[in-house]
Amino acid sequence: MVDFDAKDPNFAARVAKSFANQGIMRHLGARLRLITAGYCEIELAYSDDVCQQHGFFHGGAIGTIADSAGGYAAFSLMGADDGVLTVEYKLNLMAPADGELLIARGQVLRPGRTLTVTRAEVAVVKDGKEKPCAAVQQTMMRIVGRPDVIG
Amino acid sequence: MVDFDAKDPNFAARVAKSFANQGIMRHLGARLRLITAGYCEIELAYSDDVCQQHGFFHGGAIGTIADSAGGYAAFSLMGADDGVLTVEYKLNLMAPADGELLIARGQVLRPGRTLTVTRAEVAVVKDGKEKPCAAVQQTMMRIVGRPDVIG
Amino acid sequence: MVDFDAKDPNFAARVAKSFANQGIMRHLGARLRLITAGYCEIELAYSDDVCQQHGFFHGGAIGTIADSAGGYAAFSLMGADDGVLTVEYKLNLMAPADGELLIARGQVLRPGRTLTVTRAEVAVVKDGKEKPCAAVQQTMMRIVGRPDVIG
Amino acid sequence: MVDFDAKDPNFAARVAKSFANQGIMRHLGARLRLITAGYCEIELAYSDDVCQQHGFFHGGAIGTIADSAGGYAAFSLMGADDGVLTVEYKLNLMAPADGELLIARGQVLRPGRTLTVTRAEVAVVKDGKEKPCAAVQQTMMRIVGRPDVIG
Repeated sequence: MVDFDAKDPNFAARVAKSFANQGIMRHLGARLRLITAGYCEIELAYSDDVCQQHGFFHGGAIGTIADSAGGYAAFSLMGADDGVLTVEYKLNLMAPADGELLIARGQVLRPGRTLTVTRAEVAVVKDGKEKPCAAVQQTMMRIVGRPDVIG
Repeated sequence: MVDFDAKDPNFAARVAKSFANQGIMRHLGARLRLITAGYCEIELAYSDDVCQQHGFFHGGAIGTIADSAGGYAAFSLMGADDGVLTVEYKLNLMAPADGELLIARGQVLRPGRTLTVTRAEVAVVKDGKEKPCAAVQQTMMRIVGRPDVIG
Repeated sequence: MVDFDAKDPNFAARVAKSFANQGIMRHLGARLRLITAGYCEIELAYSDDVCQQHGFFHGGAIGTIADSAGGYAAFSLMGADDGVLTVEYKLNLMAPADGELLIARGQVLRPGRTLTVTRAEVAVVKDGKEKPCAAVQQTMMRIVGRPDVIG
Repeated sequence: MVDFDAKDPNFAARVAKSFANQGIMRHLGARLRLITAGYCEIELAYSDDVCQQHGFFHGGAIGTIADSAGGYAAFSLMGADDGVLTVEYKLNLMAPADGELLIARGQVLRPGRTLTVTRAEVAVVKDGKEKPCAAVQQTMMRIVGRPDVIG
């Protein structure tokens, strides 16, 4: 993994504040685990509210936290007055998400002036053991003069 | 749009039952609007539980119902004993999802013995007027002998 | 399909000129069939130079003309001084491309000030009969003040 | 990167033979650099035959070798009687491919009985110095009883 320099020294507080304001994250029960320059981890505990009918995590919940992990990884490298929005992402579901916790790890692959490409991997934890279950490749766009995550 | 023949004459009841069992759909407040052979519509009313911090629908909610609309479109063409799971999808967010209702319309592009390719479009309704906000291209996989949607 | 207004009345000549300058299109033998506002068709005749080992069109050739068809559809709506580049695309190969001719049809789904989303479908023609073989969803970016396709 | 076990001890010869039979690889001038279990490198030297009009490598050439690098990484883990075909891939073009040589590096992310997920990165070499220019996430499908790469 490449090391990145954050333009905004207060990026961690900026990311945490934005995350706290996302209604859907609170509603699903997602939690910001870790944010460093160009890297973000989000976790989601299992509940009936995020499952499909077989009792596994639903693909929509997996996509939601993976999208956010990649998005906040990109956002961490932006300036204090920048916003970002998700242009697009592609999600591969690689194994049933059967377990008690999901962890999405997003990282910047290439930061750009306008567009930033990220990747994320999602693992499911069962009986304390991690197993990869999904992979994302994503494009984020910087929005000048509209601080915060817009997607 | 192409017309498809459903192998299972009871596909609509089969889809409705599977949808009703998805915890996340109930938790987000999504509703199955329409299911025909190879085509599915899912809607989601606005609430604080599906928004991001600017009061628009969150990309995760958009992706979740688009994934399901494409998935159930594929599932409608399967046999009574088949299951499906999402292999992968790619979502473009094309405009801010600012409005009171989201509608995802999924349709089968090419049904296959093992893999089915679908597309979905998502529109946001504001003051009664629809505006496109997202587009998805998706791959679904048929699972023999495990009825229901697995993704 | 939506109708679009072209900003530049000379878009067809602009597209044809750009296409003629793409070394790889000439080398593969691709031909610009049709360009209208927001829509483009590119064809490619079969030869040993564009095949894989079973005598079908190679996925790389399919992706190349699909990418260009979507890209020129987007480029047709740009101003005379604009350039475009491909941000990303996603290609589904849906059936073996077994035939004498490939036709890629690209169209704009949503034009934007900076980003334009397109879709393309590719058909293979065998014994005069068309069959769908691939589908693309793509993001193009407008580059101000650098006329031409850059991707 | 994870280590994988190859089922077929002769996988390297099997990959080399398949690669040699791909007309488009020969026509573009691509070369198989390296194949190990679950990992593949393909390179492509610059020429007028693989460029766009600004003298950079064309996106279609980049996508073609990235698709093949991921595909052969997956193929290396298959059995002696298996075939593979590309289900789909998603390509991000991250920087102009300006240089004398392209190198695509594909690796298996998750091998599966039916579907294998891979990623590839493409770098462009200019004056002997490498720079990342593209990233791919891809789904490959195993075809039982039809040895060789089919895509």
